[in-house]
Amino acid sequence: MIDFDSRLSRAGRKMQQSEIRKMGTLLAEARNVVSFAPGYPDPTAFPWDELQEMASELLSSRDGGVLQYGPTRGHRPLLDAIAGILERRRIVATPDNLQVTTGSQQGLDLLARVLLDPGDIVLVELPAYAGAITAFRNVQAELVGVRQEEDGIDLAHLEATTSRLRREGRSVRMLYVVPNFQNPTGLLLARHKRAALLEWAARHDLLIVEDDPYCDLYFEDRAGPADTTPIAADDREGRVVYLSSFSKTLAPGFRVAWMAAPAPLASRIEVAKQATDLCTPALDQHIVYEACRRGVIDRQVPRLRRHYQRKRDVMVSALRDKVGETVSWVDPRGGFFLWVRLPAHIDAESMLARAVRHGVIYVAGGAFFVDGTGRNTLRLSFSLPSPEGIEEGVSRLASAVREAVATEPAVRS
Amino acid sequence: MIDFDSRLSRAGRKMQQSEIRKMGTLLAEARNVVSFAPGYPDPTAFPWDELQEMASELLSSRDGGVLQYGPTRGHRPLLDAIAGILERRRIVATPDNLQVTTGSQQGLDLLARVLLDPGDIVLVELPAYAGAITAFRNVQAELVGVRQEEDGIDLAHLEATTSRLRREGRSVRMLYVVPNFQNPTGLLLARHKRAALLEWAARHDLLIVEDDPYCDLYFEDRAGPADTTPIAADDREGRVVYLSSFSKTLAPGFRVAWMAAPAPLASRIEVAKQATDLCTPALDQHIVYEACRRGVIDRQVPRLRRHYQRKRDVMVSALRDKVGETVSWVDPRGGFFLWVRLPAHIDAESMLARAVRHGVIYVAGGAFFVDGTGRNTLRLSFSLPSPEGIEEGVSRLASAVREAVATEPAVRS
Repeated sequence: MIDFDSRLSRAGRKMQQSEIRKMGTLLAEARNVVSFAPGYPDPTAFPWDELQEMASELLSSRDGGVLQYGPTRGHRPLLDAIAGILERRRIVATPDNLQVTTGSQQGLDLLARVLLDPGDIVLVELPAYAGAITAFRNVQAELVGVRQEEDGIDLAHLEATTSRLRREGRSVRMLYVVPNFQNPTGLLLARHKRAALLEWAARHDLLIVEDDPYCDLYFEDRAGPADTTPIAADDREGRVVYLSSFSKTLAPGFRVAWMAAPAPLASRIEVAKQATDLCTPALDQHIVYEACRRGVIDRQVPRLRRHYQRKRDVMVSALRDKVGETVSWVDPRGGFFLWVRLPAHIDAESMLARAVRHGVIYVAGGAFFVDGTGRNTLRLSFSLPSPEGIEEGVSRLASAVREAVATEPAVRS
Repeated sequence: MIDFDSRLSRAGRKMQQSEIRKMGTLLAEARNVVSFAPGYPDPTAFPWDELQEMASELLSSRDGGVLQYGPTRGHRPLLDAIAGILERRRIVATPDNLQVTTGSQQGLDLLARVLLDPGDIVLVELPAYAGAITAFRNVQAELVGVRQEEDGIDLAHLEATTSRLRREGRSVRMLYVVPNFQNPTGLLLARHKRAALLEWAARHDLLIVEDDPYCDLYFEDRAGPADTTPIAADDREGRVVYLSSFSKTLAPGFRVAWMAAPAPLASRIEVAKQATDLCTPALDQHIVYEACRRGVIDRQVPRLRRHYQRKRDVMVSALRDKVGETVSWVDPRGGFFLWVRLPAHIDAESMLARAVRHGVIYVAGGAFFVDGTGRNTLRLSFSLPSPEGIEEGVSRLASAVREAVATEPAVRS
């Protein structure tokens, strides 16, 4: 057999496997492990009966469009429905601004390809969503991290970093930000910071890529629609490209997401998408559209808020009880994730083998940091396991942490 | 609003809209037009009842995997089913060699990204599938055309072109070929040429990307399984990357296709896919798997052979009757396409406006030629229109051709 390593493109040689997907594989192989690793929604909360009914009706219609190649831009009625969703998020969009994508991951990939040349700089949060890091790195962009505080990105550090890079003559292109219940930290970006980011972008003539899958999944005890209004809602200059998805509010298996962008950029993205998958699957788009039209998603969302809030409650209280004196975290106000800081000298990646022995897995935080820091952090996802699973998993995690603290000499740090 | 043209990447600036997709838009806008443009399968031939039944059963199972994020490599039982399909095509593959893709278009895009650097050369047929041309151009590869004869690629021209490029020190990387009922020409590559291509690849240490969506759709009066055995079946060195799809044998709206590649390359492709859409939609993969498992596709394929063969018969006989003395073509032995050569001085793209006035559309051949030739050719797809539509469309086309011949002075050429 011939050798392939020597035949890869420069981009191909550099591509790296996602840490989270590796965890998924690990999970598939392990038995009786509680997994806090992948940020999967809970399938027991999917509206199965309604999905079955809609799929069945669509396929009994024998409408060719349900199973045919479709327009690259997206199923037109779905585009209109998305415009309606955006209106409720206070974002003005018409189908000219919208592009349906095969998951938001595709949106990130297309943006990277259309907007970034090798060596261009993307500013990202420390830590940042790993899928975005990979999409940007795959076009050989360089990523520079900006610190976060408890209420999101550190504006002073953002300004200082931007100015420094500009002084150095670097080609800074955009900021990538997840404002609502960020993956991986679960943090919510403060309202005044959203306005400040728009000013920052105007001042430096840069773009903001706002990735917002968790917008609707705030927990009513701690946040509301006014806290989660997207940055894009106040964008008057067309500097914000906004991404969101049906993966968390309906189901990820449909891979139906969207992007709202100024019309000229949306057209470019459409052209780029043609060559990557022609169009997002038709049956999936039709089912998602029906779920919008029939109010399935509107009924689903408040239910999901309560569902995941309960799980957060279980995780927070288990952590407090079992390991609260050793680790720290910020209580999530929405979304799927809780971010844990271990004692400074504990390496979350080394601790993983120990955790697996105790029957629990998570994602070590290092993968989300573009500057190599964050080795004592980890991401716990409370969305998928049952409340009992969460309690049990946190107990196991606590044992692993205690063992690590007892074993690793503190002088190491 | 800020300007976007100045913010595009080099790749983003160069991306071009597909001619075929433009036709799709034109079609959507026009009324009462017979379209021979898009290579769409006929939805009246989809197995609607069985698809409805399978979707319904899958969604009533409440099996989370049906709607969850799934493994990037693909739904495991589907990978096994694909290995079975390949075995019948005489290709040995295990799941380690296989990657499910969101349409074969994604397969081409991923291959381009993983294997090609800007300036690398891909050899393609004259004419070649436009979606492949775009995927390769989007990574800034250069495309060099190789002539075709009635039985497929011209081996002497291939050898001469390869040697010339090598002498010039150019980085030739691969040949892209559609061996069975090629899009756009409908040509079938002769068996002895398949073997010769493998020898050529070994001699020059190059790869072959074999794109084979129409393999099973031979017309029994003119071809059989022995004629369509993929090049990959005789590849002993791992030089052939093989792509195929369920779009033509089941339905394209699922966007479920696959690639078979040497295991090290398949792993690389998997990593690249992670960052582009995480995974191909789960419900679609589950439905397609069920269609394999329950024999739906096995029952469907012989039916489709007859179905499309009848349409070919109608088109060929209508062409013969109505415009046979003015244009030429090779009778398709399978697939969806018939390739028409107009008198040398007629430009198919200019003639299109005339055709639209007569109520028929096609794809002008120029879009498929990477060397700017082929202006007097056009692609007719007989897969979608009804037999009556085909007759009527060919009549209209004949009127447009007659008008063009009468109007365009022959001296032009």
